[in-house]
Amino acid sequence: MSDAPVLVEVRDRVALITLNRPERLNALTSDMGAAYARALREADADPGIRVAVVTGAGRGFCSGADLSVLAQGPEALEGFVSETAWDDLPTGALDVRIPVVMAVNGPAAGLGFVIALTGDVCFASPTARFISAFSRLGLVAEYGVAWLLPRMIGRQRAAEILLSGRPLDAAEAERIGLVQGVHEDVVGAALAWASDVAAHCSPTSLATMKRQLYAADEAGLRASIEDSLRLMRESFRGPDLAEALLAKAAGRAPDFGPA
Amino acid sequence: MSDAPVLVEVRDRVALITLNRPERLNALTSDMGAAYARALREADADPGIRVAVVTGAGRGFCSGADLSVLAQGPEALEGFVSETAWDDLPTGALDVRIPVVMAVNGPAAGLGFVIALTGDVCFASPTARFISAFSRLGLVAEYGVAWLLPRMIGRQRAAEILLSGRPLDAAEAERIGLVQGVHEDVVGAALAWASDVAAHCSPTSLATMKRQLYAADEAGLRASIEDSLRLMRESFRGPDLAEALLAKAAGRAPDFGPA
Amino acid sequence: MSDAPVLVEVRDRVALITLNRPERLNALTSDMGAAYARALREADADPGIRVAVVTGAGRGFCSGADLSVLAQGPEALEGFVSETAWDDLPTGALDVRIPVVMAVNGPAAGLGFVIALTGDVCFASPTARFISAFSRLGLVAEYGVAWLLPRMIGRQRAAEILLSGRPLDAAEAERIGLVQGVHEDVVGAALAWASDVAAHCSPTSLATMKRQLYAADEAGLRASIEDSLRLMRESFRGPDLAEALLAKAAGRAPDFGPA
Repeated sequence: MSDAPVLVEVRDRVALITLNRPERLNALTSDMGAAYARALREADADPGIRVAVVTGAGRGFCSGADLSVLAQGPEALEGFVSETAWDDLPTGALDVRIPVVMAVNGPAAGLGFVIALTGDVCFASPTARFISAFSRLGLVAEYGVAWLLPRMIGRQRAAEILLSGRPLDAAEAERIGLVQGVHEDVVGAALAWASDVAAHCSPTSLATMKRQLYAADEAGLRASIEDSLRLMRESFRGPDLAEALLAKAAGRAPDFGPA
Repeated sequence: MSDAPVLVEVRDRVALITLNRPERLNALTSDMGAAYARALREADADPGIRVAVVTGAGRGFCSGADLSVLAQGPEALEGFVSETAWDDLPTGALDVRIPVVMAVNGPAAGLGFVIALTGDVCFASPTARFISAFSRLGLVAEYGVAWLLPRMIGRQRAAEILLSGRPLDAAEAERIGLVQGVHEDVVGAALAWASDVAAHCSPTSLATMKRQLYAADEAGLRASIEDSLRLMRESFRGPDLAEALLAKAAGRAPDFGPA
Repeated sequence: MSDAPVLVEVRDRVALITLNRPERLNALTSDMGAAYARALREADADPGIRVAVVTGAGRGFCSGADLSVLAQGPEALEGFVSETAWDDLPTGALDVRIPVVMAVNGPAAGLGFVIALTGDVCFASPTARFISAFSRLGLVAEYGVAWLLPRMIGRQRAAEILLSGRPLDAAEAERIGLVQGVHEDVVGAALAWASDVAAHCSPTSLATMKRQLYAADEAGLRASIEDSLRLMRESFRGPDLAEALLAKAAGRAPDFGPA
């Protein structure tokens, strides 16, 4: 089991998903990418799981597409991408309803950089490195990174990083808002955030707000407010508000049902 | 008068609007929400008023919808929202032509969090707290917060805050760009900013630029430049540029007419 | 030649473009604006040039439209704008395929503020000042600034700066993300960034990613990912990935062809 390319462990309603090729700094093969996407989908479908945390085994987070594929030339690479079904893209974290926390414990390069950016939340260890690298390899802004990065850190900072392909360390990543915290024990910090959310937040609220954030990006302000008014009325009639108020009155944690 | 739920005081062409239920940390009732929206509209319609500042009486800014409404169940809450006409939404600051400065002097929770986010500018006192809280109550991102917050602080930071529903203190709010300054005397700082703008900036320019910022969000870059070229030509023919140049040459403050 | 309103010097595949009316802090005339736009277009069309750096001669970067034009009244100003062909707009840096680095060495006011914002990257000297000034002159957010600024630093910070028209110093500009670094020798720092990119990054990748960043602003996330998948496949078949891998294996710098 510990030889599987992706490990999943569940505690306190949180799924810890670990990329597991430590001897290659968790470089992605097609199979491993599919296993990662599957692990996210299964966590999302499991009513007992409320939040997912993603990290890497050993010293790395994910060093990108396996270099042996790169070195085999364009056909192998096109195969690598063609074999990847839309459901198995490294951007899978964007598509699940549950919050996904990235715990970047080392280099996140190329595809690993993409995965780090797809978290709803991203924490880093002091040894984390964020390396887009695309421009230095004759490649492009892969898998929606050109959409994600400017919306996180602003268009000029995003351009500077994507055009130069230079590495960022954890402190700079935190300063510019690419990560929401730097922690020696990054997996511990990510699990703490996830456990708090799993224990105290309504899964229906989480799923709805994640959808709202995407929808609002493409909508005008008026349409977005209109949409929120409709969703507000629905939320008032749902069971979670009542449960939250009862729990608060009783001084206990709420017991929300699945989304 | 000092019992009114919303107080308005005008000095130096600046309207100071104070939410005034200090014994409830300025929790909003329907009447109070309507009075707040009306105060903004009236300030906007008054040619003698150039900027509005919003703050809370006592130790709080606005602790959200009155909990007594929340506790009365879904019908009362739906009533609370249904009674609120579009013109009376807590997002009214977005719709007026004059700049609105939020002076957040204490907790801004739920609806109070919404109001804080609708300012063109936001200053905080060291005791300010920003608390979305929605996910912990089984609610959604209310009143366009899902649109506003990512455009202020980036999508990942916005997701982390909305999904967790955790409180932010003033220092963190400033660090991530949710507030533009932290001041012991936050009302004084907000009034100073507002008085400077009221004395030196063209009301027509302010109204036009506020519109431009919203329009640019939904427009492409080319269309936005094209629009600005048209508005530039109009501004050259208006009286305010001439007045600004005359005032500068004479070493006096400009005397701009209303928008 | 050193009397020309815009100077161009090429070293190491980098074009250094200098606004050259130091006695007027490089205030723009129509001719000078056209020369600046032409210099950018020519650098972009030259296969030997990979990156452009823009700075100002003397103590200033660019103090805006020449005040003598402003003082001649609305007809002269309309002429100033009308004479400016779309290709000669001060936003020309947005339209070229090569990366453009702004090296802001002093005041960047009005049109100079616009130019500073159009860089893909912006560095500042400690004496840099960013001054929109529009609201204080009865003007509007000129040339797409209402589109650019919120996407760099967030909508509230952008509103505060545009509405007040107040000056920002270099330290604040860096803190809020308007510049990516402050350096005593700002031209040296900009040239170092540019030379590194010129030596190590694929011109095709740079041009593609610059296009991707603009396209992604107007596209949805799904469409943006779809677009990136298509571009990825193209990049795998191009010569630059192969050259990058060969160069890496040989421990030498890559020799990429023009875009």
